[in-house]
Amino acid sequence: MRFLHTADWHIGKKLHGYDLLEEQTDAFKQILMIAKKEKVEAIVVAGDLYDRSVPSVEAIEVFNRMIVEMNLQEKFPVLAISGNHDSSTRLETGGPWFIQSDFHLNTRLDQAFQPVELANTQFFLLPYFEPISARLYFDNEEIRTIEQAMKEVIAAMEKQFKPNMAHVLVSHFFVAGSEKSDSETKLMVGGLDTVPLSLLESFDYVALGHLHGKNALQAENARYSGSPLKFSLSEMNQKKGVWIVDTQVNETTFEFQEIAPLRDVLQIEGSFKELTTPEIYEAINRENYLHIQLTDRAVIPNMMNQLRQIYPRVIGVERLFGREEQQKSNQAKKEIKTLAPTELVDQFFSEVTGEELTAQQHVWIKENLADIHQAERGK
Amino acid sequence: MRFLHTADWHIGKKLHGYDLLEEQTDAFKQILMIAKKEKVEAIVVAGDLYDRSVPSVEAIEVFNRMIVEMNLQEKFPVLAISGNHDSSTRLETGGPWFIQSDFHLNTRLDQAFQPVELANTQFFLLPYFEPISARLYFDNEEIRTIEQAMKEVIAAMEKQFKPNMAHVLVSHFFVAGSEKSDSETKLMVGGLDTVPLSLLESFDYVALGHLHGKNALQAENARYSGSPLKFSLSEMNQKKGVWIVDTQVNETTFEFQEIAPLRDVLQIEGSFKELTTPEIYEAINRENYLHIQLTDRAVIPNMMNQLRQIYPRVIGVERLFGREEQQKSNQAKKEIKTLAPTELVDQFFSEVTGEELTAQQHVWIKENLADIHQAERGK
Repeated sequence: MRFLHTADWHIGKKLHGYDLLEEQTDAFKQILMIAKKEKVEAIVVAGDLYDRSVPSVEAIEVFNRMIVEMNLQEKFPVLAISGNHDSSTRLETGGPWFIQSDFHLNTRLDQAFQPVELANTQFFLLPYFEPISARLYFDNEEIRTIEQAMKEVIAAMEKQFKPNMAHVLVSHFFVAGSEKSDSETKLMVGGLDTVPLSLLESFDYVALGHLHGKNALQAENARYSGSPLKFSLSEMNQKKGVWIVDTQVNETTFEFQEIAPLRDVLQIEGSFKELTTPEIYEAINRENYLHIQLTDRAVIPNMMNQLRQIYPRVIGVERLFGREEQQKSNQAKKEIKTLAPTELVDQFFSEVTGEELTAQQHVWIKENLADIHQAERGK
Repeated sequence: MRFLHTADWHIGKKLHGYDLLEEQTDAFKQILMIAKKEKVEAIVVAGDLYDRSVPSVEAIEVFNRMIVEMNLQEKFPVLAISGNHDSSTRLETGGPWFIQSDFHLNTRLDQAFQPVELANTQFFLLPYFEPISARLYFDNEEIRTIEQAMKEVIAAMEKQFKPNMAHVLVSHFFVAGSEKSDSETKLMVGGLDTVPLSLLESFDYVALGHLHGKNALQAENARYSGSPLKFSLSEMNQKKGVWIVDTQVNETTFEFQEIAPLRDVLQIEGSFKELTTPEIYEAINRENYLHIQLTDRAVIPNMMNQLRQIYPRVIGVERLFGREEQQKSNQAKKEIKTLAPTELVDQFFSEVTGEELTAQQHVWIKENLADIHQAERGK
């Protein structure tokens, strides 16, 4: 059978303070289009549906619309699990009703051992879990790490394998040797959360969630789908998308299908003057989330505000060759002591605004300073 | 047809810090038993399913189990609305799937105008809403109060009335002239949230939620079910339960069925000595939530702790005839200045514990005070 593998939607996630719900909705629409075009028989979502255990009302609205569209309107069977970012209990609400329309949303370890059978394939939907859950489920005090737990989990799954079917594991953890990006939350310190690839050998395909790059793991039978969007600058050069997987007994193939971002996460480079020159910035897609690398070394007054007026989604500014700040500020300190109050205001104003005070403003300042001076004396 | 009317479950509510999930689960089981015994064809829940817009994980677990049992296991059609304590969006998740098994959970105003038809009855499920929602829905800028909104809402519902059917409104608001308890949250100041009874005349029955006493409103065609549990001392003398309603075209009858609380909310009276005497307290059901009225006037050292050791669920202590405190504490202040350090510790200990220090404890205190004294001098 043919299915689509996605993960790490992180609905409600923000990028440097910017709300991504519009981008997330757009990526979801593309996922649905790919699913229809490729005539998949199921959509697999391998965890981290939400970005937070208590999502905002806005995130819930967006997510609710997505699952209605995917499962009730477009009638796709959905095979999903909770990830480390989801609250399993909060996500569980509605689960027993979802099954009626082939929307399987597993949030508890015990659910992983009842495979969902679709066409020629058994799907084992293993939600993110902590070793304590496995310790209790298997009644085995020795289980302390995810690796130990996974040995038991997989042995229990293998007992359910039907030999004439393909076997797919859907799960959400860190597989040893995978490459990380900046936007994933570390599950645990010290590698206790790591699962060796060798444990996963008996599956025809392992649909992984957790890491945000599709190339994080290169294995014969396992892939991270990656997130549908770039969630950090470190993912700048990643292609985002989904895997289309074809399972046959003893032969499974998969192919990547790209998603074009509504707004990309990119880096641009230039001097402040260049980047604020219309002929130059009009050639740039300024709707994107941009990390700006400035070649200038000089202090630029009110820089961020000026850049944001041209580039509405600046996620960071970097000085490629450092900044003259240190030296300047020492000079400034010396000068300050020798400056008259009106001169100080003059200098402060032009540093902050990049403009000079008008004659009228000078008059106001003088008057105000005189008032303050008199008030001080009167004390 | 016959249905059961309940409301104001407030799952997750605490009573003076005590978790009520066990009591709430017990009351729910009784509701189900009544529903089965009375062979009702539907269960109506008129809002405030949860106590908070963001319920705890524990509250969600309890609620999820309840709806699974009521609808999927016992197969009761469920007709529910969100109340002012619920977050309509958070409660909405799963709603479109619930309908497949006749679990209708309305959280938005627009859903109220598609009645649910069961047997001979049209149910209009009107969730709690703010006037702004009606202003937008009816595109009528004049709507400023719930009363104005309700005029439009009911007119729109009446257009859907089928003459050969009974008409039931399920809603969650304050009907003019109803009596309040202490445990309801005021919806609005100044009576803007009040709906006159006359507006509800065209319905055969109005299943109300919001007020916690079943006798809050005595109308021919409308009742509050009240909460299944007592949520405050002011409800001490209320009978809690559900209404069993029989609708026939042009004749609707209803009867109250009581729920026995797992632990009651009661008041007891006596002197401290009486209430801490085994012969007396062993005759009291000390598992209940108790408000204690003391007849003593004397200061009682460590009173609350002593009472809690006997009565594990004290929700308040009241001095029926006042307390000698004021006078005593002035005396104490004067004495303190004249007391030696060891005497001060003596007095403090017996005030807090109600016991005297032992000889050994006196020795330890003297030694320690001497050490402190020496250390101070050495500085």
